Amino acid sequence: MTYCVAINVKEGIVFASDSRTNAGVDYVRTSTKMHRFFWPGDRIVVLLSSGNLATTQAVVNAIERDLDTPKAKFNLLKAKHLFDIADYVGELSKQEQQHHGPAVEKNGGSAAASFILGGQIKGREQGTYLIYPEGNYISSSFETPYLQIGENKYGKPILDRVINTESSLNDAARCALVSLDSTMRSNISVGPPFELAMYTGDSLDEPRQASMKLASPYYKSLQKSWNEGIKRAFTRLPKFDWEK
Amino acid sequence: MTYCVAINVKEGIVFASDSRTNAGVDYVRTSTKMHRFFWPGDRIVVLLSSGNLATTQAVVNAIERDLDTPKAKFNLLKAKHLFDIADYVGELSKQEQQHHGPAVEKNGGSAAASFILGGQIKGREQGTYLIYPEGNYISSSFETPYLQIGENKYGKPILDRVINTESSLNDAARCALVSLDSTMRSNISVGPPFELAMYTGDSLDEPRQASMKLASPYYKSLQKSWNEGIKRAFTRLPKFDWEK
Repeated sequence: MTYCVAINVKEGIVFASDSRTNAGVDYVRTSTKMHRFFWPGDRIVVLLSSGNLATTQAVVNAIERDLDTPKAKFNLLKAKHLFDIADYVGELSKQEQQHHGPAVEKNGGSAAASFILGGQIKGREQGTYLIYPEGNYISSSFETPYLQIGENKYGKPILDRVINTESSLNDAARCALVSLDSTMRSNISVGPPFELAMYTGDSLDEPRQASMKLASPYYKSLQKSWNEGIKRAFTRLPKFDWEK
Repeated sequence: MTYCVAINVKEGIVFASDSRTNAGVDYVRTSTKMHRFFWPGDRIVVLLSSGNLATTQAVVNAIERDLDTPKAKFNLLKAKHLFDIADYVGELSKQEQQHHGPAVEKNGGSAAASFILGGQIKGREQGTYLIYPEGNYISSSFETPYLQIGENKYGKPILDRVINTESSLNDAARCALVSLDSTMRSNISVGPPFELAMYTGDSLDEPRQASMKLASPYYKSLQKSWNEGIKRAFTRLPKFDWEK
């Protein structure tokens, strides 16, 4: 399983992802689910992936192949809008699923994959898109500035309670880490290291990047602080009438 | 959708459920999902239900029909163990699903239903069981003292962080309400009034019961306190190195 989230606030965009691809007891493998394509000053593109690993890797390979092919009909450098890239990723994903899907399904599997795309192209607004396995996509909104793929439910309540478009980039990053931590505690198939990328809106600079292992000092202090904070909030809840 | 949770702590058992059965825009209907069968001094049985409403109502009707039939092969009063009742509810549910399932599935629906059963029979230990649509069942454990049915993921992180078998009955009840509140915020198809039943272990007394509407003073103060507590915990999270 996977959990990825992107938070699109006024100050910029936070991307966060776990790294677990197989949570079998004796075969735990990790693989990055955050794919980075940076041309500072011109365009910053981050892609988070969830679902069939062969599909998501094939899509990333195709993106790279098109970038190496100056005559390619389309590639990340030829895109005028971020949503053109969403369209393109959706098409690549659909093609790959059509290619291998029937064989995978025969064995009870699924070739389906979902993506979150985010970043900015010079002269355009920053944005984030969720690309469905069917190839269509939606963007985040003012009311719901975050998008999630994979095991998204455990980590949603904290986003709903804390995040809005005015949240700072650092706060959004902390919230993404808490959201990942809550998911990991409730579902063993989501696991560290957690990858974080923070893009400052309109900078067209490379995002700040961090990788958090369970033993990372910052992650440990965040976990401890959050656990204590939750317990404090819980002990302060009002008493029932019959307790008074 | 539905969300029900039962928490089995040393001090007793908390049962909590939402009441929304249809969250359509112009046809919001509520119905109780908590079914009570009390014989104080002898046995206390609470049943929480999720899934196809016709199936769950038919199961409750069958339970009542058997109670009115002294010659019934089995009924709640004839049970020696709580797990006998789990078995019985599972059978009733399976029969009902087999009866109507094919017709319901023809129209793209599902007759499936899940239940949480809990309570105590004189001379036996208190207990809780989750009864699957297939009719089989599991009990809660020391490590995981709660059971959930329906839309269970949004409300799980708070249970994982706060509840253990040493939690007081009142704390378990507060946690169940916070878990319901988090679920309602993240999924519009789960809604109030929330019903609460608190059974004191070994008392064989009727559980304490409460119904919480959005406007109930206690529920409002709980919501406010929790929201503030979460926000306080969030603002106290450690700063990143680059913020210092």
